[in-house]
Amino acid sequence: MAPRIGVFDSGFGGLTVLRELKTSMPEADYLYFGDTAHLPYGAKSVRTVAKYAIASARFLESRGIELLVVACNTATALALDEIKSAVRIPVIGVVEPGAERAASKSKARRAAVIATEATVSSHAYSRALEKLGLEVTEKACPLFVPLVEEGWVEHPVTENVAHIYMDDIFGNGATHPDVLLLGCTHYPLIRPLLRRVVPQHIEIVDSAESTATKVVGQLGSQSDAGLPGQLRCYATDSTDKFRRLGEKFLGCPINNIELVDIES
Amino acid sequence: MAPRIGVFDSGFGGLTVLRELKTSMPEADYLYFGDTAHLPYGAKSVRTVAKYAIASARFLESRGIELLVVACNTATALALDEIKSAVRIPVIGVVEPGAERAASKSKARRAAVIATEATVSSHAYSRALEKLGLEVTEKACPLFVPLVEEGWVEHPVTENVAHIYMDDIFGNGATHPDVLLLGCTHYPLIRPLLRRVVPQHIEIVDSAESTATKVVGQLGSQSDAGLPGQLRCYATDSTDKFRRLGEKFLGCPINNIELVDIES
Repeated sequence: MAPRIGVFDSGFGGLTVLRELKTSMPEADYLYFGDTAHLPYGAKSVRTVAKYAIASARFLESRGIELLVVACNTATALALDEIKSAVRIPVIGVVEPGAERAASKSKARRAAVIATEATVSSHAYSRALEKLGLEVTEKACPLFVPLVEEGWVEHPVTENVAHIYMDDIFGNGATHPDVLLLGCTHYPLIRPLLRRVVPQHIEIVDSAESTATKVVGQLGSQSDAGLPGQLRCYATDSTDKFRRLGEKFLGCPINNIELVDIES
Repeated sequence: MAPRIGVFDSGFGGLTVLRELKTSMPEADYLYFGDTAHLPYGAKSVRTVAKYAIASARFLESRGIELLVVACNTATALALDEIKSAVRIPVIGVVEPGAERAASKSKARRAAVIATEATVSSHAYSRALEKLGLEVTEKACPLFVPLVEEGWVEHPVTENVAHIYMDDIFGNGATHPDVLLLGCTHYPLIRPLLRRVVPQHIEIVDSAESTATKVVGQLGSQSDAGLPGQLRCYATDSTDKFRRLGEKFLGCPINNIELVDIES
């Protein structure tokens, strides 16, 4: 029988992770939860992010998922242990797979991580990368999410902002990371732009693909002879907006969205 | 006895309104509520904004305020009537005072309004200005809030973004507004920058001063011989962050901040 996988994010960004999961395991059924009434998590505190993430995780657990992917860097960085304690199913976050991927690509053993303010403040990526023997430079890029949501993924302003942020990392000749890890699920949408801005010898990696690989490893290899699975989405704010923005992130139509309230 | 006035906003922006209120009525006691766990409201739906705004208004009412100022354009635009129905005290929003100020300044009887996506979609400013006999051009400027929160209030990127947004309004020779109304409490912080970008004959106005005037009118003239009143702040997310960012908006130290939870 096809597995039933829950994917949780503060909004739409986690759909970039879901896209990779669907490629790796098309036969699975997916339940995607976007906590759009409380987004963005990126500038909020540990206490607040943990509260929302746990409520969302319990909602998905109550819908019968057998594994939960926390496809939100901020929620993973701030609250993965709390989420794991709050549910009885296995939980996979995006920080460790992302760090492992960066480590596998870095010859210099030095990585740069860009993420939201909250993810950077948590130093979750630093800890994960240092455990793998890498030196780390972290940089918060709080304008990238609103620029992506404005639809300016190929825009001179975004390129200008990217130059300012990237100069902070790579303009300093003293450190020489050779890998740039995208520590926020919105950032893959500006990957082509970042490719132009970042020095050519720097490899750009994100967590989506390596997270999908980890999920496949955890669930064991499935028969891929079956029919493609179902996708059901839950949002805590406007389902219309979820559909409109979500389809950009997922790259295909979303038909099945339900409005839910996790506060009552 | 000094009045006890409640001021509500999704975050810090409403402190620009509080600043005007303190200038107009320094002897009043102020209770400021920043719903920072749910900010920003600007891209959320009517249902969600109304729910948070009502919970916040009831919290302030329970603390004994005699008048509530909704110092958040989005909450006023989307949910002023719902807030009024939910509490027993008088409620003043920022949209009407802002529209009245714009109308008093416009000779051409044409105003442009810039605001968040949700405020623009509600057309609350259009309705208020049209009632006063003005033609209206509305424009959502979703990047201004994150740019202000990044601290880039005098920055080439913000100026570039402002040119792009303002060209959409004033680049079209067919319409000639002579007033620009700042329909978001974050925008007064980039008013000097907007002054450079917007054609010189355009008058820039915001709601803060006219809202303060309306509050004074409603409460009647107070003795100003008394001592300055107290300020007490409530936030639904990190009080440290509230203090740090809030002091920029208020322009003076904030000592008295309490973390509250309006969801339980």
